[in-house]
This record gives sequence, structure tokens and C-alpha cells, in this order.
Amino acid sequence: MQGAVIHGPRDVRFEEVPTPKIEKPTDVVIRIAATCVCGSDLWPYRGANPITRPTPMGHEYCGVVEEVGKEVARVKKGQFVIGSFFASDDTCPHCRAGFQSSCQHRELVGGAQAPYLRVPLADGTLVATREVPPPELLPSLLAASDVLGTGWFAADAANVQRGMTVVVVGDGAVGLLGVLSARQKGAERIIAMSRNPPRQKLARGFGATDVVTERGDEGIARIKELTEGVGADAVLECVGTQESMQQAIRSTRPGGTVGYVGVPHGVTLEGQGLFYGHVRLFGGPAPVRRFLPELVELILTGKINPGTVFDLVLPLAEVAEGYRAMDERRAIKALLRP
Amino acid sequence: MQGAVIHGPRDVRFEEVPTPKIEKPTDVVIRIAATCVCGSDLWPYRGANPITRPTPMGHEYCGVVEEVGKEVARVKKGQFVIGSFFASDDTCPHCRAGFQSSCQHRELVGGAQAPYLRVPLADGTLVATREVPPPELLPSLLAASDVLGTGWFAADAANVQRGMTVVVVGDGAVGLLGVLSARQKGAERIIAMSRNPPRQKLARGFGATDVVTERGDEGIARIKELTEGVGADAVLECVGTQESMQQAIRSTRPGGTVGYVGVPHGVTLEGQGLFYGHVRLFGGPAPVRRFLPELVELILTGKINPGTVFDLVLPLAEVAEGYRAMDERRAIKALLRP
Repeated sequence: MQGAVIHGPRDVRFEEVPTPKIEKPTDVVIRIAATCVCGSDLWPYRGANPITRPTPMGHEYCGVVEEVGKEVARVKKGQFVIGSFFASDDTCPHCRAGFQSSCQHRELVGGAQAPYLRVPLADGTLVATREVPPPELLPSLLAASDVLGTGWFAADAANVQRGMTVVVVGDGAVGLLGVLSARQKGAERIIAMSRNPPRQKLARGFGATDVVTERGDEGIARIKELTEGVGADAVLECVGTQESMQQAIRSTRPGGTVGYVGVPHGVTLEGQGLFYGHVRLFGGPAPVRRFLPELVELILTGKINPGTVFDLVLPLAEVAEGYRAMDERRAIKALLRP
Repeated sequence: MQGAVIHGPRDVRFEEVPTPKIEKPTDVVIRIAATCVCGSDLWPYRGANPITRPTPMGHEYCGVVEEVGKEVARVKKGQFVIGSFFASDDTCPHCRAGFQSSCQHRELVGGAQAPYLRVPLADGTLVATREVPPPELLPSLLAASDVLGTGWFAADAANVQRGMTVVVVGDGAVGLLGVLSARQKGAERIIAMSRNPPRQKLARGFGATDVVTERGDEGIARIKELTEGVGADAVLECVGTQESMQQAIRSTRPGGTVGYVGVPHGVTLEGQGLFYGHVRLFGGPAPVRRFLPELVELILTGKINPGTVFDLVLPLAEVAEGYRAMDERRAIKALLRP
């Protein structure tokens, strides 16, 4: 089969790769219904993460089970399933505590930008729908696989509660779905930080009540102004740079929480500043598996429509254009159809 | 009057200072019943904080109200009162949210190692007992002023719940009372990290179920061993160094919480390590005012006896010996009687 392989910075090729097969008895192989390019795929694409050898790309997926390993009990051939970027057994102490992305036996899922994908620890990792969903729901179900699950975790980690004032730092797909998540959790006021008119519009569509275009000290001053000098109850950090993290921390009221889901690149925090800021910090790789049943239900019942973050749809063979469009911020997020 | 003044590293003198008087109509002046030396007083004493001019010392206090400013409504002359190191109005949004140590009008209380003390924002800051308590309760009530309130906040910030496994990093008075606090909050297992036999004994008396003497990587390995490879649900960081903070973070299970109350000195946190550790971090100057009514009640009803952390009692005039004994770790905490 042919799939996406990164060879170096800004060098993604659609080329021949081995067709996945069952390697362990707990694996399944799925036929991909839809996949996409992740904001985190841009870290290696932009050279921020080293690429030591040609690497198959993609970790967001949904599709139909084609082949089932011998020890797989729950997942059946023909089922439509959604999973996350970390395969997890869903039985270890970390999984049982709801942190499946820290599963003691976790494995990174890779190579989803292809027609077929091997998913390890299938029983723990995959969530099946009762029937194969109609095609118009595919973008939203695919979003649940990572970008929605991650935005949802940002809101969960930031302890968003009914009536709160929430700031979202980052207007990428995760930030935008962080807005949707905060709205679902009952936030009263949601301030999206964005300078980009189409993204501002999408943010408002997902539930943002205010948009702040300023950044840095000016952005913080604007948040303080909007909150009568108090700061936000909860801040979702969805970027992962030193600047965005500081923006998040300094926009939070004493006793408030920053939920951070942008993979930190070059971020260091100074202890005394954090101490006197009185800000709770929580984040990490989103335990999407915990949220999947709830998110899938919200999508299937039409309560949320996160799939609108995909503003570019390409045939899988044009995956390189998906990377280019996102890198150049011409697209928020590119969906790929095998 | 005569009080404690720091002139430079390891140079604390008991000398003539102005007797405090009402400066603002929201002040009161109290006659100190008991005061003490704080672990944080050792930062300037050891030269870790700069001393630019001779500075009156002490911020832990309880005593009887002597003089009352014109705008003070709640606090009355003759009442026995306890307060905290930050004076707070108890009405601003940060106070109402329970973070009085970040009060928008907070003022540091200083000069408590003396016979008399001016307390600003008295109505917001001070908690009065119904009657003047018997002398044997003075050490415990004094402990509530800071060291118990701070240990309690560590447990509160670390989200200690019934049945949890808790690690306490630091065997100073705050760490020891962190053990007591975790026990009060229903922790099932409390692991105190200490190499010092008298402190280990006190920790066990306050409710520690296990003592770990190892530090650094070995200490972390020991915690993992004691928790079947999982890590602790909650960790109380009561020191404030890079080593102790790393000890705390790396002893915590994914999804667990570090409550940190040691004022960070030279602590920096690397973002990606924190991210993949999946650890919630919360701390800062303890909002002791929030906890005072509950803590005073627990003491007056004999449910807790935190005053046993004072293992040295000196006349106030011998304050310099109190600093020396704590600096040399001959004493856990020195109580001073005017």
C-alpha cells in the first residue's frame, strides 16, 4: 500500500510502505475511513523534532476492523472503531485512574496516514459504534480521535466548571475545540485569543463570547481588563511555546488552573514566579480514551459538531499538500480520504 | 520595647525597636502571647535572601488585642486572636475565592518576634477565640498561624482525599504538620521522607505509616517500590529546593498532584518533563486565613495537637539562639515567650 512517510523537514512523501498485519495477538488491523494531519505533526515537519530515519506519519484514525488478533475479545471484525494516539490496555492502575495516555503498557500508534493501520492493545484502545456511522459524521468522529479529545482534556485539566470565565490560548484545531469543550462544560464566558479572522469566526461558532487579538503583556492586560482585574478561572494552553505558556499562567487568577496540552517545546518555568502566581498547572498527553465514549455519544446524537475544524479535505495521495497548507496556516486542519 | 532584628547573615539581635502603634484606622495592636522562628526566616539568616537594611523579624503570632483602630468593627480589645503572615481584607475577589494570601490589598506582617505587633486589615486578618485559651494550648494555636496552616494547604493543594497514598517531602515543622494534615484528611498511607530519628518519631506520632530515608533517584525508586510501581496519589513538597521539587514530582503517579509550599529557591521546571509526567502542580503562599477557623476549632476541641513541633522554648530575649538551633538542625522549631 502507499502511505505518508516523513524523510526530513518539509519532506513528506506518499510512497510504498508495508501493509500492516497482526504482529501480536492483541492487535487488530483497521481499514482507515478518514485520517488527518495533526498540529503536532508540524513539529518534525518544521524541524523542531529530529527525524533520524524515514518515518510513517499519522496517529488520528477511525475506520472498520479488517483483521483481529487471537487474544482480542471485545473488538469484532466489521465494527467501526475510533482510537487514540496512545494504545493502552485500559486495565493497569494508570488506565483505571483515567490516565490511559500514561498506561504502563502504552504504545504509540503510528502510520495512520495510510489505507490500513495496525492498532496494538485493541481491546483497551478502541471504542466501537453500534453501527457504521453515516459519512457526514466521519469528520467529527475522526476529530474525537485526537484534536477534540485533546481540547476536551485541556478543559478537564483546567477544571472548567459551570459559570466560569475561561481563556483559550491558541487558535489551532485543539484550541478551537477547547472552546467547544469549555462551552459543553458550561463555561459562561469564553475568551479566545486569536488574530486570524476565519479562526475567530470558528471560535465564536464553537461558543467563544470574546476574542482577544493582543499577545504577550498586552494580551494579559486585556484579559485582566475583561475580568475586572481578577484574571480567568481556567485557562487552556493549546500551543506549547514559552510565550503561550506564560500567557496562560499570567492570565489565570490566584487559585485558578491552567490546563496545558500543547507539547512543550523549549518551555521552562521559574519556581518562584509560579509559587507567587498561585496558579494550578495540569496537562500532558490527553487521555483521549477516557473521553471517547462520551464524545462519540455527543457526536452521534448531534449535540456537537467538531468536524467543522477540517477546512481542507484532500485525497490521501495529496497528504504533502495537507502538511504544506497547515504549515503555511492556509488551513486549520486537513482531512485525508484514502 | 525590644525585638528581634536581622542585620546580616547569621546576625539576629534582640534590640530596641519602636513600639508599634495604630497607623491606619483598620489596624490593631496586639500583645504577643507566643511567637516563633519560621523555616523561611532561615532563608535570609543563611544569606539566601538579601538583607538590605536591619529588618524586624517574625510573622507568626497569637495574642491579646491591646489597641483598636477606628474602622475596626469585628475585632475587640481584650480578645485572643490568631492571624497569618499576610494581612488580607477577606472581601476582595481573591479572598472570597479562598486565596487570602493573594488578597488584592495584602500586606506582609512583620516584626512579630517582639512583645507587641501591629496587624493591618485586622477585621479581615484575625480570627478570635471565644475566650482566652489556657496556656497549654498556646503552642498549638501559634502553630496554626503559619506552620500548621501551611502544612494544611500543602495537603489541600495536593488534593489529599480519604484512602489515598501520600508522600511528604521535607521533615521540617511544615512537613511534619503536612503529615498531620494528610492524616486529618483521611489519607490511608503516609510516607514521610526523613533521615533524622527524632523527626521520624514525630512524623509517626502525627500519622506517618512509613518512613523513607533515601533521597534523589533512590528515594524515588523506594516510593515506587512501596506503591507497586504506581507512585503516590498526592505529594506534599515542603522544602523549596530543586532537588526536593524533583523528588516530589517524580514520586507522583500520573494524574496525581504535588502540593508545594516550600518557597522555591533556584527551582526551574522543564516543560516537557512535566508534560509527560502527567502531574498536577499547585502551591504558593498558604492562604492560612481560609483554614484558621477550622484549625482553631480542631485545636480547642483537642482533636489535633500540632504544638508538639516546638521542641525548644526560649525567652524572647534569647531569640538569636532559636535561629542558631534551627539553622544547625538542633531544633525543629523554636517557640519564643515574651
